[in-house]
Amino acid sequence: MEIKIVKQILEWNEDVSEEVKAALSEHKVCLINVMGSPGAGKTSLITDIINRLRETYRIGVIEGDIAGAIDADKIDKMGIPVVQLQTDGACHIEAMSIRHMLSFFNLGEIDVLIVENIGNLVCPAEFNIGEDMRVAILSVPEGDDKVEKYPLMFATTDALVINKYDMMPYFEFDEERVRRNVSDLNAKAHVFPVSTKTGQGALEFCTWLSEKIAEKIKK
Amino acid sequence: MEIKIVKQILEWNEDVSEEVKAALSEHKVCLINVMGSPGAGKTSLITDIINRLRETYRIGVIEGDIAGAIDADKIDKMGIPVVQLQTDGACHIEAMSIRHMLSFFNLGEIDVLIVENIGNLVCPAEFNIGEDMRVAILSVPEGDDKVEKYPLMFATTDALVINKYDMMPYFEFDEERVRRNVSDLNAKAHVFPVSTKTGQGALEFCTWLSEKIAEKIKK
Repeated sequence: MEIKIVKQILEWNEDVSEEVKAALSEHKVCLINVMGSPGAGKTSLITDIINRLRETYRIGVIEGDIAGAIDADKIDKMGIPVVQLQTDGACHIEAMSIRHMLSFFNLGEIDVLIVENIGNLVCPAEFNIGEDMRVAILSVPEGDDKVEKYPLMFATTDALVINKYDMMPYFEFDEERVRRNVSDLNAKAHVFPVSTKTGQGALEFCTWLSEKIAEKIKK
Repeated sequence: MEIKIVKQILEWNEDVSEEVKAALSEHKVCLINVMGSPGAGKTSLITDIINRLRETYRIGVIEGDIAGAIDADKIDKMGIPVVQLQTDGACHIEAMSIRHMLSFFNLGEIDVLIVENIGNLVCPAEFNIGEDMRVAILSVPEGDDKVEKYPLMFATTDALVINKYDMMPYFEFDEERVRRNVSDLNAKAHVFPVSTKTGQGALEFCTWLSEKIAEKIKK
């Protein structure tokens, strides 16, 4: 019984995600879906992207949280248009919420819309939200077995950021294991070791991201 | 529409969780539901509990994972009865799965059944599985804002283990903020700073847990 219900929601979600894609294409807006565990560094990566790419692209942000507006406050202080989505307990963001929230942005004045999904390695990966790109974050303290344990997230991402890379000396984290597991699941995924704290690797990641955004916006 | 569906599953789940409780009560088995983010240290805490309490109690383990059997292998090597539940994509464990899995244990020969839930701070908290006790783990690298962002997990737990406490010098983690937020939500929750790596705090936590188990089993 439960499996049928999930299928219904997922099919419905696919239809709406196509509507989101169409609305964004019309305005040449690139949607990026940022996902990862609680505390993996999603907000820190997004503020890094903003700092490095705000001269090149006009950026907007949707912050997804179950409760509160802690992260949206941080983005707002940077002078970036941001809307907080409170899912009130739900563990992922659906395309329907994104469709609704597009009305809060002036899409003619935005090139890149970044969605910070709910901190969760499971459910968000199941729901397309109309994104052009997925960025998954795995932080070193979470451990090197996460690709095997949560395969869908890593099988469907365009980029994997291995964050908190400055913590490598303090954790047993086999980077090769992660890279091997990801490449087995997903040959297209680019892997970027990053420390949002020290800045290491952030330039490489943002350079790649900027090129991907340019490709999308030109179309 | 979606909200109605979730309610139906949750109500159904409550009925089954009562059946699990009754089956365990009959055999005086204490069920402990261990929850936390991916990589917070759930398996490490469970192996700590086993090492410290296996002389006192007969322990069994249910390992919940979306895919694979990495953690069950670790427990099996310790000579502890363990069953792997693969949820095949699902983000939490439901009471129905636990009811089914009880048949794989000889309940007359077990005092404590520990369930390692799916790595997820959201959905597992919504589903009672017939547990006598909940243990939530938050690791220092995840950050000190997680109680505000994922309130249900912390509002419903009996104990909060702040794990990877040896990493405190390397992260900005305001322990008082976490303790204050937890106590606002949940006056009954006991907070234990622990490092499953160095062993710090594990004795205090396991002593408390052992007393709680004894209370339950005596009944």
